[in-house]
Formats: sequence, structure tokens, C-alpha cells
Amino acid sequence: VERERRPVIGFLTDFGLDGAAATCRGVMLGICRDAQIIDICHTVRKYSVADGSFILTASLPYLPAGVHVGVVDPGVGTPRRPVAIRAQRGDILVGPDNGLLVAPAESLGGVDAIRQLENRTFWLTGTSATFHGRDVFAPVAGHLSVGDATFEELGPTLAPDDLVRLEAPQNRVAAGVLETAVAYVDSFGNIRLACGPEDLARAFGVVEPGASVVAVFHPSEGPERRDAARFVTTFGQVESGSALLYVDSSGRLAYADNQGDAAARLGAGTGTAVRITRAIDRAET
Amino acid sequence: VERERRPVIGFLTDFGLDGAAATCRGVMLGICRDAQIIDICHTVRKYSVADGSFILTASLPYLPAGVHVGVVDPGVGTPRRPVAIRAQRGDILVGPDNGLLVAPAESLGGVDAIRQLENRTFWLTGTSATFHGRDVFAPVAGHLSVGDATFEELGPTLAPDDLVRLEAPQNRVAAGVLETAVAYVDSFGNIRLACGPEDLARAFGVVEPGASVVAVFHPSEGPERRDAARFVTTFGQVESGSALLYVDSSGRLAYADNQGDAAARLGAGTGTAVRITRAIDRAET
Amino acid sequence: VERERRPVIGFLTDFGLDGAAATCRGVMLGICRDAQIIDICHTVRKYSVADGSFILTASLPYLPAGVHVGVVDPGVGTPRRPVAIRAQRGDILVGPDNGLLVAPAESLGGVDAIRQLENRTFWLTGTSATFHGRDVFAPVAGHLSVGDATFEELGPTLAPDDLVRLEAPQNRVAAGVLETAVAYVDSFGNIRLACGPEDLARAFGVVEPGASVVAVFHPSEGPERRDAARFVTTFGQVESGSALLYVDSSGRLAYADNQGDAAARLGAGTGTAVRITRAIDRAET
Repeated sequence: VERERRPVIGFLTDFGLDGAAATCRGVMLGICRDAQIIDICHTVRKYSVADGSFILTASLPYLPAGVHVGVVDPGVGTPRRPVAIRAQRGDILVGPDNGLLVAPAESLGGVDAIRQLENRTFWLTGTSATFHGRDVFAPVAGHLSVGDATFEELGPTLAPDDLVRLEAPQNRVAAGVLETAVAYVDSFGNIRLACGPEDLARAFGVVEPGASVVAVFHPSEGPERRDAARFVTTFGQVESGSALLYVDSSGRLAYADNQGDAAARLGAGTGTAVRITRAIDRAET
Repeated sequence: VERERRPVIGFLTDFGLDGAAATCRGVMLGICRDAQIIDICHTVRKYSVADGSFILTASLPYLPAGVHVGVVDPGVGTPRRPVAIRAQRGDILVGPDNGLLVAPAESLGGVDAIRQLENRTFWLTGTSATFHGRDVFAPVAGHLSVGDATFEELGPTLAPDDLVRLEAPQNRVAAGVLETAVAYVDSFGNIRLACGPEDLARAFGVVEPGASVVAVFHPSEGPERRDAARFVTTFGQVESGSALLYVDSSGRLAYADNQGDAAARLGAGTGTAVRITRAIDRAET
Repeated sequence: VERERRPVIGFLTDFGLDGAAATCRGVMLGICRDAQIIDICHTVRKYSVADGSFILTASLPYLPAGVHVGVVDPGVGTPRRPVAIRAQRGDILVGPDNGLLVAPAESLGGVDAIRQLENRTFWLTGTSATFHGRDVFAPVAGHLSVGDATFEELGPTLAPDDLVRLEAPQNRVAAGVLETAVAYVDSFGNIRLACGPEDLARAFGVVEPGASVVAVFHPSEGPERRDAARFVTTFGQVESGSALLYVDSSGRLAYADNQGDAAARLGAGTGTAVRITRAIDRAET
């Protein structure tokens, strides 16, 4: 974190828009008045650690190095550990040890060191049992940003193996078949998949632009949905309302409708299983 | 307000997310380019002065002292007065005199002095009849923050008794019964009550952790809802989906479902009457 | 753009609230750490270039002169041109050439000069096909703001006639009849019309305050809706729940319900045709 320029604090929660995030911003700015807080998202699906982790992972590499606070914390007030994770790029990620911060740290070059937050010098006095965003994570981020706390002072060291990790979807690749899962549904209803173009290549070899694929979505409720799409580069290459499979702006595979909400149409949400095959009837190509 | 550090402006409205709040931010930054604006909430339930007041009251004590603008103003353009209220902590609250700002000022140590906004030197020229946030409140906040207006220059003095006040819910406490009301429903659906743990103690004496209570909600429409909860410290102390009564992060009583939306389940909204008793059948404890 | 004060960047998209806008903010601040980014709106109705243009046009005149980024871009990745438009006031507007930025530039004194974005020196390396907000528009705005890119360096000149323009609604004025269209529905449900009080005067001559009008809305689906309103100055001059016709804070005509959602009640959306006449039965006046 550079000290001569305004320190950056990225900030993501599932607090919604009604004042809790602002309360934390107030705490951070009360400690580090010059901070440049970047609100990443405060409308993470309530309690969805996986969604929060996805959003942080997609955005943090594009933020300046800094201290970042992530709070999706259904276990607040229970013995889950509060942690700070230093990434290889130099960022420090502050939040609960529930898997939220691991993939984001990996997107910043990997986990460099971890501290369990125990030093109450850097917390608000009178810590509540239900709002550690305000009472623990925000003040720790403020003190790190203004420079009156060091990473090492936050608490004892943890090893990378100590961290809670989210269960990653298992992709299965066979000749002509790619089985994966929905990693995230973005605000457009675009379905971000838990696999990349390299998985597609392993399943199908070279997939020529414009090729047809068939995707079968298995929602947790209701019948499976079978859908056809073209593998293209961008939305405008298919008709408005038609489906496309593409490499998204994070370099992963995604499935979308041009100017439509594919996730709503197909009943897909985080974790939905997806099976992709090449279209048999090449006449439609 | 410190002058050597970036001045803080807290900002809350019911304007929604589509540009009106940004217009006001533009006005404030045009006058005080270095302001650190903290957007507290712009999705206050439309016209709900009580909800806006609750959110300001919960958040402002955690913001640095500064100038704060609150605009939930169904009476814009009518003779309701525009005011600035100086709080004991040193903050100046700017907005309509409709009750919105009184409880927030009390949360900052109490009302110190009040001015009616009359000096148009600090307003935009060509004041509209429907957007005083942009034309009156934002520029006044900007001028106060940059230091080219003083509180005393804003207009004539008002007395605290002159202020419009919101009607506070009347709590009724009897042996074994606590009658109160919903003060606010937060974005998680947690039901914040208009009473504190001291009221609970007056009704029941010492309530041991884990004790069972019965809450009856009387929505304005539909039948009353009877519900059981445990009195605990934090969400994780009850099963996922179970109800809890707890002391929230503002030190007040609240009623919630662990990882659920209690307000939706129970039909509770701001003002809903609530009656809490101890569970008779202690077998369930 | 002044260089001695923090540079302002206005920012509007239809990206929603889940991290894409923050990613762009991160890119801008990575290049220009001291920027004062004003988030104008990120919940523009998906793909609605007209809505985005309306919001920019209403807000930008109240922001300090600066660089402003607008991204409502259903054609991302297709040959639609990325552009920068310099307005007479000195602002530079950055975004797609799809009509989004023309009316906003006119609200800032008119179009002064246009450059097609071609100089990849000021883009991120590895430009994606689906996220030009992050890869093209944000970095260009950052470089312009920090001063290491000039407008002239961005790419070749375009002429004003080269710009794509939105089709403007045609108002028709006859004696006693004003035919217009809905320009925008704001977050309150107030119906902003594509005409001004001068059109009302051309249709009806002097309209006295309190006069009754009849408005007929022709939604694209469903039957037309006939409604009566008073022509007044502000909301509080009609009963709560009653309709009013008024001159809004941008100086245009608007139709609303006092403390109600007129657009929902009347089925009005952007583009809905509206026909306004004077009420025949003056007994209701």
C-alpha cells in the first residue's frame, strides 16, 4: 500500500443499502480521513459467501493495491475467526474466516500471510455481537490504511491450511461433454460458469467461432432446462434474445442471452449444475 | 468540524438510485471540492420520515463530526421550514423541519442550536419548488463545509420547542408484558423495536440467556401473528431459520430470524404493534 | 477541468450494483488516485440508452466540469464506435456512440469537438469483447483526469453529424391539445414528459395555477388510461394521492401523484404517448 497517495479501501458486504455500510465507512474515515473507499458491492445475496467471493475475485485485481474489507458473515458472533490475509500483490483482505476471502487473495497473486484478528487495540470499544463489520473489520482496515497498525500487530499468525475454504465446483470433462456449475449470476442475468475456455477445449478440441452448443441446466427445483446457444465473442454476434456461450471479461466461460436475462429464463442460480455438449444437428450451424 | 482535514458530509434521502442524489453531490462538490461525502442511504422508503430518522440515528454517531444532509421531504414546496440543527458533538444537520433530524441530533449529544434557512446567499439561484435537496440543502451543506458560510449566517434562530417532532411509540411495561412497536425493519428483515433491554428487564426482571419469549405482532392489515423466540446474544445461537430476540448493535431490542427474513414472515413494518411475554410452557426451554 | 483541485469524474452505467461499476472505479483510481468520482446512477434500466441519456442530461449541469463516463452499451464488442465528446462547458464525455451522450453534451453548452477512441495507449492491455467500461472508457477517463492524455490524443476527429442520435419524441401542439411522450419515469414514479411549459402555453395560452387538465396515456400494451390533474407548482398543493401537472426541477413538464406512484397507476414508461387537454367540465375547478 503506497503511503504518499490516498489509501484505497475496497469494501463489499451483504448489508444492503440502508445505512449499515455507511456506518462502517464512517468508522473507516474517522480513523483514516483521506481514504479513498471503493464500494464494490453491498447487495451481495444475503449470506451468500460464494457470491461475495466471486464479486471480490472479479473486481479486486482492477483496484489499486490497498486494504479491502469483505463482510458476508452469517456466523457473526459465533467462534468463526476474524482474519486479515495479505496477498502477494501487497493487499490486505480483512473479514471473517469463512471462505469469502481466499479466492480473492488468490486473484491478487496468492496468499502471502495470515493473521487472526485478536488485538482489540484496533477495534472499537464495546464490540457488539452482531455487527463486526462496524466494530472489528472497519476499524482494523482504517488503522491499517492510516498506518498506525501493522499487519503483524493484528494478532497471531495462521497457516494457509488453517483457513476455511469454499467447496469448489468439480468440473468434469469428457470427450464431447463438459459438466460444470454456475459460479455466479450477474445483474444482467448472465450466467458465469465455474470453468474456462481451456475446459471447453479439453472437451471438444478447437471450437470454431459460431459453433452451436447445447446446455442443460439442472436447477435445484423444477425440471431441467435444455437450451441451444452459439459460441461467439460478444453479445451483438447473436440476435437480440438469442443465447450465446462466450469467454467473459474475467476469462471464464459464461452463458447469456443478448439483451435478455438468461438466468431467469433458465432458472439458473449459483451452484446450478450445467452440462454442455456440441449440438448434434449441425444443420443449425 | 475540523478544517484541516477533508470535511465530511453525511447524506441520506429517499431519492432512490437514479441520479437525483448524484445531482446534489455535484452541487456539494462544486462548492467544496474536497468534501468526503458519505452516502448513508438513498433508498429510504419513499416519504417515510420515521425510517430516515432511524437510519440517521443509527449511523451518524459512527461518522466523523461534519455537516449532514437528510432529505425525506413529502412537504417540499409547502411552508414547512428548511432548517439547520447544530448538535452538541459539533455536527450540523441540514434538511426539512419535519421531525427527520431531531432524533439524529439527540444521538449526537442533543440539540445545541437551530437556524431556519432563509439566507438565499447560500442557495442555488432559481430555486425550484420540487427539489430543495439540490437547490437549498446541498448548497447550504457545501458552503458550511468549505467554510464560507457560518451556522449563524444561515437564518434566524429557532427554539428547540419550535421543531416538528415525530410521534414516538409509547412503550407499555407491566409485570410479564412488554408492549412496544416496530421502529424499523432493516435490509435483512430484522425487526428493530422501539424499546431497549431496560424495558425488557422492567417487564420480566432478569432474563437469562436462552430464555423463551412469545411475541405477538399486530400488522395494520391481516390477522395478528404469534411467534416464539429465544433471547440470545447473536444469530448463530439459534438454529438457521429460528427466531431470536436480542440486543442489536444500537443497544435496542430486536427480533429476527437467523438467516431469514422475520419481517416478511411476520408481516411486520414500521409502526407495527408488538406484545412480548415470557413463554408459559417452559418445557420448550 | 481544473488541475489544482481534485478532478471530478461523473459515472453512469446500467451495470447494476454487483461489482462491475466498482471494477471501473478501481481502474480510474488506479490511474488518477485523487479523482472525485461521482456515481450518478448504475441502475439505469438495462440497455435503455434513452433513460441513461435523460439522467445524465438532468444531473451533469449540476456537477463540476470534469470527465464523465456513460456506459449503456448493448452494442459492446460490435463496430459501434467508442467516442469522447467535448462540451462547450469544458467537460469531456466518454462512452459509446449510440446516442447516450449527445443530449448530455447539449445540456453542457453543446458539442464542441469529438474524437473517436482509437489510441490504445490509454486503454487497458488485453481489451475484452464484453467490458469496454473497464477496458476502454474507464482508463481513458482516468488518463484524461490525471492529465497524461489530452483530448486530441485519443483518436481521430469526428464531425457532429457523424454522431448517432436518439430519435426525439415529436411533440404536436394544436389549439387545446398537447401531444407528447414520456421521457423518463423517475424513482418516485413521477412521469417526466418530453415537453416544456412553453408547449403547454402554445396549446392552451396562459394556464392559471390550479387549472384542471385531462391526460390520456397510451401504453404500448393494454387500454389507454384517462386521468385528471391540476396544474400546480408543487406536490403539496394537491391532496395526497391526487395527480398534478407541474414544471419539474429540470424545467420540463411532469405528471405525478402527490406521495404516490403515478407511472405504476397509469402504466406509463419511457416512450408512452400522452395527450393533454384542458378539462371541459370546469365545475371540477
